[in-house]
Amino acid sequence: MIITSSEIIKMESRYRANLFNTLSGYKSANLIGTISEDNITNLAIFNSVIHLGAHPPLMGFILRPTTVERHTYDNIKTAGYYTFNHVNENIIEKAHQTSAKYDRQISEFKACGLTEEFNQNFKAPFVAESIIKIGLKFKEEILIPSNNTILMVGEIQLVQIEEELIEEDGSIDLSKAKTITISGLDTYLRAEKLIKLSYARP
Amino acid sequence: MIITSSEIIKMESRYRANLFNTLSGYKSANLIGTISEDNITNLAIFNSVIHLGAHPPLMGFILRPTTVERHTYDNIKTAGYYTFNHVNENIIEKAHQTSAKYDRQISEFKACGLTEEFNQNFKAPFVAESIIKIGLKFKEEILIPSNNTILMVGEIQLVQIEEELIEEDGSIDLSKAKTITISGLDTYLRAEKLIKLSYARP
Repeated sequence: MIITSSEIIKMESRYRANLFNTLSGYKSANLIGTISEDNITNLAIFNSVIHLGAHPPLMGFILRPTTVERHTYDNIKTAGYYTFNHVNENIIEKAHQTSAKYDRQISEFKACGLTEEFNQNFKAPFVAESIIKIGLKFKEEILIPSNNTILMVGEIQLVQIEEELIEEDGSIDLSKAKTITISGLDTYLRAEKLIKLSYARP
Repeated sequence: MIITSSEIIKMESRYRANLFNTLSGYKSANLIGTISEDNITNLAIFNSVIHLGAHPPLMGFILRPTTVERHTYDNIKTAGYYTFNHVNENIIEKAHQTSAKYDRQISEFKACGLTEEFNQNFKAPFVAESIIKIGLKFKEEILIPSNNTILMVGEIQLVQIEEELIEEDGSIDLSKAKTITISGLDTYLRAEKLIKLSYARP
């Protein structure tokens, strides 16, 4: 089946959202932890966290201009620090629940049954139930003019992980860490290793 | 275990690359198909393809300033069109092999044993062996000043997919399509659905 531009334009909006949210393939699943000027913590699930570079260690995520995500944005801008916490098999439902539109005065940590944790004097809350936790310092925001979304760029300051999850070559065994992957907006999957290949040469 | 900034700086460069390439979580696996002004086709695997929006339907990918990826970049800039082709379980080794540094005069399609396909008069080659194929028109490139990588933004013009892979709500069943996911630079995994959750409300 071929779907063309003229058919895309005519699609019902929810159908189109589901189609294009699954079309890019599997995505990462991270909870972003932040804290407001009034010391109210915030937690929100994102499927748009990406690797940007290892030297310096940079990660990004895409922000859409919605109410829920706006709390995350405001807190990052005022505090300057935030956390990424991998969603694992044991906390899928709680993690998904953070996508609900809670009032700014309510912390999703409490509302969704996840435990906030302040480690190493880091100025943003981690998720105690996460097995892989990352502390970031905000670097820059980049507007994507095509649809007014924003790429938020941060530098990794701190990684909290069990030592046995890191292989000899530095790779993290994500399956062992029970990290899950997301398809679209609402489907959570476990990944099973098929093969690890060596550096390719012509 | 806590890994701090001062430890990150001291890491051996390959170890650091593996650590941070796996730290963001699972990634999509796509072959990007392009064609040069001299009509030489090019194919390269990318683990950085992301969803940017459904209306208009936009996808992005991150380009690092390396030799291999430069062919993809040049071709997109001159032709204006390119394709994303999901990597599936049957073509993992061939897809991975496209990451080798082939000369500009050599098409990775032939060199890696994949079949180029020109459909619907689209001005870039698709991968015949891919089950999900996407044709894009180049929209804009956005520099990420923090590390001089580039976010390439394209608008979806055409989707080629079997009808039975699309669920009633528009979502694609990626497991059924045998689409695989990547961890880091070299580990390929199959994903197995755990749960699909409904829209969350407070």
